[in-house]
Amino acid sequence: MLRYLTAGESHGPALVSILEGMPAGLALSADDINVQLARRQLGYGRGRRMEIESDRVMFRSGVRHGVTLGSPIALEITNLDWRQWEVRMDPTPNPDYKPNPVTKPRPGHADLPGALKYGHRDVRNVLERASARETASRVCVGAVARRLLAEFDIHVYSHVLSIGGVHARRVNLPPAQLHELAESNDVRCTDTGVVDAIHQAIDAAKANGDTLGGVFEVLVTGVPPGLGSHVQWDRKLDGRLAQALMSMQAIKGVEIGMGFAVAETPGSQVHDPIAYDAASAFGFIHTSNNAGGIEGGMSNGETIVIRVAKKPISTLYKPLASVDLETKQSFAASIERSDTCAVPAASVIGENIVAFTIAQAFLEKYGGDSIAEIRRNYIGYLTEIRER
Amino acid sequence: MLRYLTAGESHGPALVSILEGMPAGLALSADDINVQLARRQLGYGRGRRMEIESDRVMFRSGVRHGVTLGSPIALEITNLDWRQWEVRMDPTPNPDYKPNPVTKPRPGHADLPGALKYGHRDVRNVLERASARETASRVCVGAVARRLLAEFDIHVYSHVLSIGGVHARRVNLPPAQLHELAESNDVRCTDTGVVDAIHQAIDAAKANGDTLGGVFEVLVTGVPPGLGSHVQWDRKLDGRLAQALMSMQAIKGVEIGMGFAVAETPGSQVHDPIAYDAASAFGFIHTSNNAGGIEGGMSNGETIVIRVAKKPISTLYKPLASVDLETKQSFAASIERSDTCAVPAASVIGENIVAFTIAQAFLEKYGGDSIAEIRRNYIGYLTEIRER
Amino acid sequence: MLRYLTAGESHGPALVSILEGMPAGLALSADDINVQLARRQLGYGRGRRMEIESDRVMFRSGVRHGVTLGSPIALEITNLDWRQWEVRMDPTPNPDYKPNPVTKPRPGHADLPGALKYGHRDVRNVLERASARETASRVCVGAVARRLLAEFDIHVYSHVLSIGGVHARRVNLPPAQLHELAESNDVRCTDTGVVDAIHQAIDAAKANGDTLGGVFEVLVTGVPPGLGSHVQWDRKLDGRLAQALMSMQAIKGVEIGMGFAVAETPGSQVHDPIAYDAASAFGFIHTSNNAGGIEGGMSNGETIVIRVAKKPISTLYKPLASVDLETKQSFAASIERSDTCAVPAASVIGENIVAFTIAQAFLEKYGGDSIAEIRRNYIGYLTEIRER
Amino acid sequence: MLRYLTAGESHGPALVSILEGMPAGLALSADDINVQLARRQLGYGRGRRMEIESDRVMFRSGVRHGVTLGSPIALEITNLDWRQWEVRMDPTPNPDYKPNPVTKPRPGHADLPGALKYGHRDVRNVLERASARETASRVCVGAVARRLLAEFDIHVYSHVLSIGGVHARRVNLPPAQLHELAESNDVRCTDTGVVDAIHQAIDAAKANGDTLGGVFEVLVTGVPPGLGSHVQWDRKLDGRLAQALMSMQAIKGVEIGMGFAVAETPGSQVHDPIAYDAASAFGFIHTSNNAGGIEGGMSNGETIVIRVAKKPISTLYKPLASVDLETKQSFAASIERSDTCAVPAASVIGENIVAFTIAQAFLEKYGGDSIAEIRRNYIGYLTEIRER
Repeated sequence: MLRYLTAGESHGPALVSILEGMPAGLALSADDINVQLARRQLGYGRGRRMEIESDRVMFRSGVRHGVTLGSPIALEITNLDWRQWEVRMDPTPNPDYKPNPVTKPRPGHADLPGALKYGHRDVRNVLERASARETASRVCVGAVARRLLAEFDIHVYSHVLSIGGVHARRVNLPPAQLHELAESNDVRCTDTGVVDAIHQAIDAAKANGDTLGGVFEVLVTGVPPGLGSHVQWDRKLDGRLAQALMSMQAIKGVEIGMGFAVAETPGSQVHDPIAYDAASAFGFIHTSNNAGGIEGGMSNGETIVIRVAKKPISTLYKPLASVDLETKQSFAASIERSDTCAVPAASVIGENIVAFTIAQAFLEKYGGDSIAEIRRNYIGYLTEIRER
Repeated sequence: MLRYLTAGESHGPALVSILEGMPAGLALSADDINVQLARRQLGYGRGRRMEIESDRVMFRSGVRHGVTLGSPIALEITNLDWRQWEVRMDPTPNPDYKPNPVTKPRPGHADLPGALKYGHRDVRNVLERASARETASRVCVGAVARRLLAEFDIHVYSHVLSIGGVHARRVNLPPAQLHELAESNDVRCTDTGVVDAIHQAIDAAKANGDTLGGVFEVLVTGVPPGLGSHVQWDRKLDGRLAQALMSMQAIKGVEIGMGFAVAETPGSQVHDPIAYDAASAFGFIHTSNNAGGIEGGMSNGETIVIRVAKKPISTLYKPLASVDLETKQSFAASIERSDTCAVPAASVIGENIVAFTIAQAFLEKYGGDSIAEIRRNYIGYLTEIRER
Repeated sequence: MLRYLTAGESHGPALVSILEGMPAGLALSADDINVQLARRQLGYGRGRRMEIESDRVMFRSGVRHGVTLGSPIALEITNLDWRQWEVRMDPTPNPDYKPNPVTKPRPGHADLPGALKYGHRDVRNVLERASARETASRVCVGAVARRLLAEFDIHVYSHVLSIGGVHARRVNLPPAQLHELAESNDVRCTDTGVVDAIHQAIDAAKANGDTLGGVFEVLVTGVPPGLGSHVQWDRKLDGRLAQALMSMQAIKGVEIGMGFAVAETPGSQVHDPIAYDAASAFGFIHTSNNAGGIEGGMSNGETIVIRVAKKPISTLYKPLASVDLETKQSFAASIERSDTCAVPAASVIGENIVAFTIAQAFLEKYGGDSIAEIRRNYIGYLTEIRER
Repeated sequence: MLRYLTAGESHGPALVSILEGMPAGLALSADDINVQLARRQLGYGRGRRMEIESDRVMFRSGVRHGVTLGSPIALEITNLDWRQWEVRMDPTPNPDYKPNPVTKPRPGHADLPGALKYGHRDVRNVLERASARETASRVCVGAVARRLLAEFDIHVYSHVLSIGGVHARRVNLPPAQLHELAESNDVRCTDTGVVDAIHQAIDAAKANGDTLGGVFEVLVTGVPPGLGSHVQWDRKLDGRLAQALMSMQAIKGVEIGMGFAVAETPGSQVHDPIAYDAASAFGFIHTSNNAGGIEGGMSNGETIVIRVAKKPISTLYKPLASVDLETKQSFAASIERSDTCAVPAASVIGENIVAFTIAQAFLEKYGGDSIAEIRRNYIGYLTEIRER
């Protein structure tokens, strides 16, 4: 069973993750992960910190001479600005520390419920962990999963569909080419004609002390039919993908395939006809993909298509009203950091989050503890479903 | 830890669930559950089976003299049409059975991926379990959770927002009153003016051999701040709710609070200002609720608001193209059952699914093994957050 | 992931279990389970209830025409003496019920801690679930697992080593033959010469109002090397077996292979030399089996050997001192039931408990959702380790 | 839910653990852990490496100014001899590395099953993770749990009962004093008169190229009645303790309270009479403790008593027969390290492993996210059970 835990405060010494259950024999380099970490830091509309931190992963375990061992993989990212925070965030009581608790919860953040839940008097004790910086850990973990998937010709792509109400037009191309287009610009849109308008929207929001959200789409190609299961609620692939993505910071909506539009469309135009194409990877195909690759809680052999809505960054230069936790007096919320838009980065994070869930379901289906064993099992399955 | 498993084929002898981790001392009657089961069977647009099956739960364990024991609660619904299926679905090899395997997978169902995954030659072996009949089990489990929540003044409501593209207008009332309006008509809309139009849409779809989906909204009032947690991805309440709902049959989208609209709206109009109201249940309040009651993966004290998109029923009288699993020849998909629209029922199911997840998070936060102990812990918490 | 939940009070209407994660395509009949249930009810030293209850399982789901579907298997045993308990144990408030709470906790039972934990005023609310009757559910679940293992030539056996201090001599035979000897007598000893002495010990204890415990051994043959894993504490096979067995009612000790004797023996006489035998099932063999088939938290290809100590039945005719929960006054503990010795039954239960854990680890290693797929994966693995 | 993952190869750069679910507000210093790590490295009979590595933990997250945050705690121990292994164990392909695979599996180790399971050609890829060095991680995690328990006056102790067949006499003293005696000598026996004999046994074994195992006992005082539960197999406290301890390297037996001796003793002398003592911590008491503090899968308010059998270290100077994985030729097993006896260290590890499981069950029972909240809940419970 593939599983992981992440740890780390935003301004603590490091982000640490442990990924458990990866098979042995997978070629894996730090660069496989660093590429994803770098993609996560790009995008028009980011602020100063993205320049400070150039995240690099260190393997602390689980990989030897560029190949996984089957043992847990500990992944660590040093926080480069730790030195500036060492006194304030020291694990040890630090005599230089002048207590300066944050008592002003910021709207849209974990600050208020976190302080109440954990009984914190200093909101910093919440915000450090709730920060979207944690997504760097999830990218690490997902990047390893992605390497596994690539061995079986499963690939994860994404692109941004809209930012702050500016919508890209749909481009009708295979996922790999959509992805390439998205990678060509700093808002990750496949409709390159919309890039300028989005830049302007971000610039205007920034000038306004405001922030913007958006929608991105994740696509997974090459997923064989039968990942997940219809037999029990918590094994359904769509549910697991929805949890993984909705648990990402700032996400407020997840839809699969046609998504909310199914509510507007009669069944005869929603469900995907089934055909057989001996030349296709899995034999049986669908002549449309409104299901977004998942039926009955299982992958159905088509591209998995998920769209995700990210809310605007919660920290505004133009602060919202709040009240002090101790005095209950109103104040204008303080500013912790300063990106205007992180939707392009979110799409990269989303890719890696999805990669993890798909890899987890893949390993459940095919078993095995080494790439060679999994490959043997997988080929056996593909042969069976094609020849049945 | 509250958990459950469900079991049962649609035309098997029974649906069986085990709910584990409910505290002792909760007043619980079969009627508490039967009320929810009955609500699940209502709604304009249902077909013949809803008339056959009038679901009633039997407690097989965990309840004595109307009070929970703290032991696992086994919940069983007898399938009333079992007698007609006994030969075909007999657990034992049955000499009267003339094999008549279903080899024609229906678009939009689990049929194809399920048959490939499990190696079934008879699609019935998939469809019996994948059927939305399983949601009766989830309603049983959720109805028990709901009783627990009611002890702590937490209530779950729902209403239907649209069916087949016909949208109810928003009514500005407290959740309990919205619910009452919804209960007053057979499409569960709070905008009673739209009921006729929806009836007509359903009738038209039915005449057309077609089916309709829709969107419903679930509301949970009285949830204290601090359920779920920001500290680890799989503890976030929004992720867990999204999984629970997306794992429900036919669901293709889940959004919380403002949902996908956050992508269109600048941050200054998305995030909810914080205030303090000593007269309120939890002290701290928000002056709007675009977050839908969840920030940082935790409940924030406001009403939890979730919208869910259900696709049209997959079985059409006007069947879609498919191919035989054995011959690979095209055919027009067969009809297994015949509802035209199940969105009102889905909203009831959604309520109960949400109730389970909230109850699970509630018990994690407050611990305890009896209602008395949980109440003591809960009051202690409420006092603390109000007096801090 | 193979998992299960059990439910049911000892004098409630039924015992219900749900087993989730069994693959499709396994031949399975109620008799496969009833045989184990019957074995569980035998043994010298049992009291009256074993005659009343002749346990028979009913499949409520997951099996069709004698073959598993891959869906959850709901297993139900009707409690035959339910009619006599219906008023006292009615799930519904019953006007005929004259409250007669048990307030006298019995030493050696769950009564006291259970009443305190769950806040029960009537100890019956604890003892009904804590009863060893629950092991009938675990036998059901284990008997299904056993069928799975048999497909892969993995077999589970047991025999009793001692009862009440009377020890069987070790017989040097293969496990299957030991098992056959054990099945030939009502104390399940392979040393048939000791049967009379054990009968006498049980008779004497009974005459004395006393009870006896004992030690039994479970053996599993044909387990391939590599189930479990050394990489994470909770995946180790020995730990999982120890949990499964220690969680069985009345068990106070578990040891694997040489067990506690390793503490008395130098390493040179403990560790098992490795050899290669091309004619053996797995190629590599050990020339002794002090490890009991598990090294580094993994099966090593040898027979798994576990010994388990069961305490004497806690209910004595010659009752022990206790105090009333309400009055705190001393009393002599009441008698709920009346077996003198249940060690032979415990050995049967132990077999089935072990079968579940081995099957779970087996499915994790080989993946797959149907017997055909698992067989293909398994053969691939065996070929690989033999030909490497 | 308290949970953790450990990671790290024995000669890799570091051992890393993540402990998830610890409440906020717990005073915690690195020294709390380092004390336990130092105790783990002591004991007569250890070899050279114990001198090289003086383990020190670093908090990478979850602790600020000496207090836990409620967020995951990442615990890291740098492997001090990493520099000598950097080329051989480099996560990156290293041009200086001359492949020198270990192909000779050592009896008693994970080497053989691990190589077969994971398809490794170099046994080092197994042994690095299977090494008992991993127990340093488990001590880290357990030491944090121990701090939590200490807040509630729950304390974990241990002592060694026998080594290599030399048995300490039982000393009749309270657990804290037994522990103090054990800490006074380098074999951790409370019977100081046996220390010389054990030294001699270890010296003799060492001279012989042999190794010794032994038995230790863990004691937990102050555990309230009601941790764990009787209602479901996997919630029983005894089962969970057995898993935790049996999953520790080299453990072959676990027994609770009277343990295997229950098989020799009639019930009237096994079960513990119940009494009431208003002056005691929990009100109800037992006048003996043969149950070892656990009845019905729950703590019963008495001291928890567990004994654990550790096998002799598997690496012998006088090597055992084995065969090369590639050539299948016999050889005499190679030596990886060189302790003669690690039973005293094992007892320390056992303490910390037990502390984790007790803390996990404690948090399940009392809920809460901060020490203040847990304390309030706990006091409420104690008051209730004392005043009922």
